[in-house]
Amino acid sequence: MINLGIFGATGIVGQKLIEIIQSSNLKLNSLRLFGTERSAGKKTTFRNAEITVEDTATASFVGLDLIVSCANGSVSEIFIPKALKEGVNLVIDTDSHYRMDETVPLVMSGVNDEDIKSHKGIVASPNCSTSQLVLALQPIEKAFGIKRAIVNTYQSVSGAGKAAMDELSEQSTKTLQGQPNHRQSFAFNVIPQISKFLEDGYTKEEQKVMLESRKILHRPDLAISCTAVRVPVFVGHSEAVNIELKGPASLSQIRDCLQASSHLKLWQDPEYPMPLDVAGSDLVHVGRLRKDLSKENSFELWIVADNLLIGAATNAYRLLCASLEVSYDRCPN
Amino acid sequence: MINLGIFGATGIVGQKLIEIIQSSNLKLNSLRLFGTERSAGKKTTFRNAEITVEDTATASFVGLDLIVSCANGSVSEIFIPKALKEGVNLVIDTDSHYRMDETVPLVMSGVNDEDIKSHKGIVASPNCSTSQLVLALQPIEKAFGIKRAIVNTYQSVSGAGKAAMDELSEQSTKTLQGQPNHRQSFAFNVIPQISKFLEDGYTKEEQKVMLESRKILHRPDLAISCTAVRVPVFVGHSEAVNIELKGPASLSQIRDCLQASSHLKLWQDPEYPMPLDVAGSDLVHVGRLRKDLSKENSFELWIVADNLLIGAATNAYRLLCASLEVSYDRCPN
Repeated sequence: MINLGIFGATGIVGQKLIEIIQSSNLKLNSLRLFGTERSAGKKTTFRNAEITVEDTATASFVGLDLIVSCANGSVSEIFIPKALKEGVNLVIDTDSHYRMDETVPLVMSGVNDEDIKSHKGIVASPNCSTSQLVLALQPIEKAFGIKRAIVNTYQSVSGAGKAAMDELSEQSTKTLQGQPNHRQSFAFNVIPQISKFLEDGYTKEEQKVMLESRKILHRPDLAISCTAVRVPVFVGHSEAVNIELKGPASLSQIRDCLQASSHLKLWQDPEYPMPLDVAGSDLVHVGRLRKDLSKENSFELWIVADNLLIGAATNAYRLLCASLEVSYDRCPN
Repeated sequence: MINLGIFGATGIVGQKLIEIIQSSNLKLNSLRLFGTERSAGKKTTFRNAEITVEDTATASFVGLDLIVSCANGSVSEIFIPKALKEGVNLVIDTDSHYRMDETVPLVMSGVNDEDIKSHKGIVASPNCSTSQLVLALQPIEKAFGIKRAIVNTYQSVSGAGKAAMDELSEQSTKTLQGQPNHRQSFAFNVIPQISKFLEDGYTKEEQKVMLESRKILHRPDLAISCTAVRVPVFVGHSEAVNIELKGPASLSQIRDCLQASSHLKLWQDPEYPMPLDVAGSDLVHVGRLRKDLSKENSFELWIVADNLLIGAATNAYRLLCASLEVSYDRCPN
């Protein structure tokens, strides 16, 4: 049994992860929770015990076997190396900091699980938009080979954290009461920028989707373009994806290979998944599958998933189980 | 001076058109307004005169020179032929009914204005998503030739009429008060279906964008695919568009040809247009222009416009002016 630590334990992803572990049969010797200075001292009940959140910046990590980091940027950069130095065997990081590091495996459970074995202390979990994309594309990639993918996202505000969800609520209320909001409001608006702009005109978020997908699918040559857009949805990312295959495939062959995946739920017209359908679901939902009439060997699909689970907490939990060599379907004793 | 009639005068598009005409210098001999039986009898003030809405189903159209129809389906099918029989010279129809009729010109002002001359009594105005798309693509098509376009829409609920806007308000209020909504709610959701499904898996709305764009651009061979999605926005349609050109072009060449169009406003990174920016604007706003890194001669762009104006009322007004051979920039005396 392990001694587990969680960074960013008071954020939305950290909280989801604690919920998942709590309701699982995963046996822990001890659980320690870490957060910002502001969160330190808060108490969380976990399996009838009370755990006090510790300040990541001042805590010692000695005695921990494994850490899952659900925190952002600077935490990964500074405190993951510190934890490894203090004897932690493995850190599973949901942040982007180490994802493209050649010495760090970037693993989406259900896609490239075997890559976890090559870790040197850190395993990275992909961006939320990447996660659902690669889970949906992998069966098609494996069966037919994907030549090019064009991805347009419809991303919920929970991807930007709890504060963004509160903002959406507040701004929506203001609009409905006839009060003005600033032009960059989440409410009743769509914002075609997530993260900062890069030299080439893509945003960092779009670059993540492109680079991470290539790394996870082991396809450095994959032609992929992405436009990442924020929509006024609380939970659930949607993606309209156009794929061109390397060779011919029939619609029913694509359908069959998607249906064979235990990670996917395929919806058939006239039914299709929407964000309101997927909150709390551990599946990636695929619908609107059709032949793209504009090009041979091309298809359109619509991919929806709970970004907090599939795109973060569920994958972190699955990587945790995999690192303990326990199945996340069968629960360990 | 003409005797003008407006069908669907009490709907959102009809009301916008009346506003535009009212604030223009367009001289009318008379204006008659038509609506459903339910709307008949309502009074509208137009340039200090009071006009009573008449029931389209029972009215005579004798004496009218020109009608703009802002009504839906069955009105076009039944009452446009009746109006023509009763001596009306021209009907400008914003509905889809006649758009793909080979004998009816489908005209987006600023793109294929000259086509209006071939009319035989009816001129059709394109779908709202098509309208902003062809206005943005036409300068690129003219300069470089477009081989293929992949269009993903983020469409506001006003495209579905006043009732849908009210629904979005009511559902949003319910959600914010913690009450449940049904899963197909507009509020805090995205819905990848607009209009009914066709045999090939596309929706009627998507087919409109594809077929109408080909007709307006005079490019029956244009490779085009569309995914049309409803988002919780009141006014303003957005489109993420990937285009592949027939040959090479530099980013600055594309930028120059977009900037040269008087119908477009080009935004430069890190600025970009959003729905909240475009309400009330008679321009099509283009941003996020960048080289698509996944394929040569390909580009990504983001197109936003006021769907009630660009996609309906403004174009109807411009076609009205064009049919009277008056410029919509210079006002007629």
